[in-house]
Amino acid sequence: VTAAPPRALLFDVFGTLVDWRGGMTRAGEQAGRRLGVDADWAAVADSWRARYQPALDTVRRGERPWVVLDVLHREALDAVLDEHGLGDRVPPAERDELTRGWHRLDPWPDVPAAMRRLRAAFPVAPNSTAHMALIVELSRRAGLTWDAVGGAELARAYKPDPETYLRSAAALGAAPAETMMVAAHNGDLLAAAECGLRTAFVARPAEHGPAQATDREAAEGVELAVGDLVELAERLGA
Amino acid sequence: VTAAPPRALLFDVFGTLVDWRGGMTRAGEQAGRRLGVDADWAAVADSWRARYQPALDTVRRGERPWVVLDVLHREALDAVLDEHGLGDRVPPAERDELTRGWHRLDPWPDVPAAMRRLRAAFPVAPNSTAHMALIVELSRRAGLTWDAVGGAELARAYKPDPETYLRSAAALGAAPAETMMVAAHNGDLLAAAECGLRTAFVARPAEHGPAQATDREAAEGVELAVGDLVELAERLGA
Repeated sequence: VTAAPPRALLFDVFGTLVDWRGGMTRAGEQAGRRLGVDADWAAVADSWRARYQPALDTVRRGERPWVVLDVLHREALDAVLDEHGLGDRVPPAERDELTRGWHRLDPWPDVPAAMRRLRAAFPVAPNSTAHMALIVELSRRAGLTWDAVGGAELARAYKPDPETYLRSAAALGAAPAETMMVAAHNGDLLAAAECGLRTAFVARPAEHGPAQATDREAAEGVELAVGDLVELAERLGA
Repeated sequence: VTAAPPRALLFDVFGTLVDWRGGMTRAGEQAGRRLGVDADWAAVADSWRARYQPALDTVRRGERPWVVLDVLHREALDAVLDEHGLGDRVPPAERDELTRGWHRLDPWPDVPAAMRRLRAAFPVAPNSTAHMALIVELSRRAGLTWDAVGGAELARAYKPDPETYLRSAAALGAAPAETMMVAAHNGDLLAAAECGLRTAFVARPAEHGPAQATDREAAEGVELAVGDLVELAERLGA
């Protein structure tokens, strides 16, 4: 970074810090063994994630009040299981358990140590569509430590609503221009930049599996692009 | 505790975890030395704190919108300095610096180690009238680590508004009855109990100085009373 380092860092979580596809594939496989059901659980995870933005959109458009992500995940799962011909094979209690799988995702290998290093140098907060209870459970399990939890529940809105960026930065005591949003998704970063935040792209080219076509590199207008969080820590002098 | 341990813990901050009177006396003495002003800075700290609940009441009664505590502290300071005959001795920049003193309070001696022990066993969050940026700065300085930051900024209301208790518990993924509020103030605890939370009183008999008359022991209706957080950790099996 040629400019001065930021004063605070915000992080996207799903895909940027944790491997949702691997974690939800594993959660599906565990359910499948309990139920004696054979399925392509990676494909189920992909279908589930594909329903994520459309579900958020119903809140963004004001068609329903803000709800915690568990509710949207659980609703979408019913349609996903039908889509994969599993609608009569997975009982409600297992659907609840599968939904809780989103609380138990593993961090990418570079994340835990690099986050400790970054947090020693900067106040850090997640700015995720996930609600706080999901972040708390996931972070305790993954050994991630935050100074505050920003994001959807604080703003009662989902990214890219400007309040998610602005209130998350304020929670860390930093002005937007002093705050850097870190994400593996260009759309998130460009929305942050529109709110006056600084931006860092971290490459997660296997987030969506081996054939990922999107977000393989930083878009124009993103300040910094790194291969992982260790490189981010180095670039920021952490 | 005869009942099962709680699933999550919420903490009051000023007075319960940190020594605001000692910290603000020190901040005043430092300002006094810079300005060549001699004053009874402990008395100034007491006057400042005495204006705290009346200032919060203007928000509680809906006479003004919710604001971060820095704003209320800074406004009250003007009246406090006049009251102590210091109105023309402390320039605006020093008043801002004094106000920032509330971000730099030291924990009581039992707190850092006991909080690490409690956090190893339970998700923990502050439920304070302080805004998140104050909590973040104070906690980083004091070595306190949280799973989430509840309280006034999350609820956009001040205790004893029920939303402060309910939204802070939800942030930790716990139902009210699974959550224990920890405070040195009976009023805070009885309000938490009305929201269905469990309660623990921690004695801070010198919070207001040597002649403290209030909150010397737990009120009737408080579940648990301890002498410090080490005793709380022991009683909760942490």
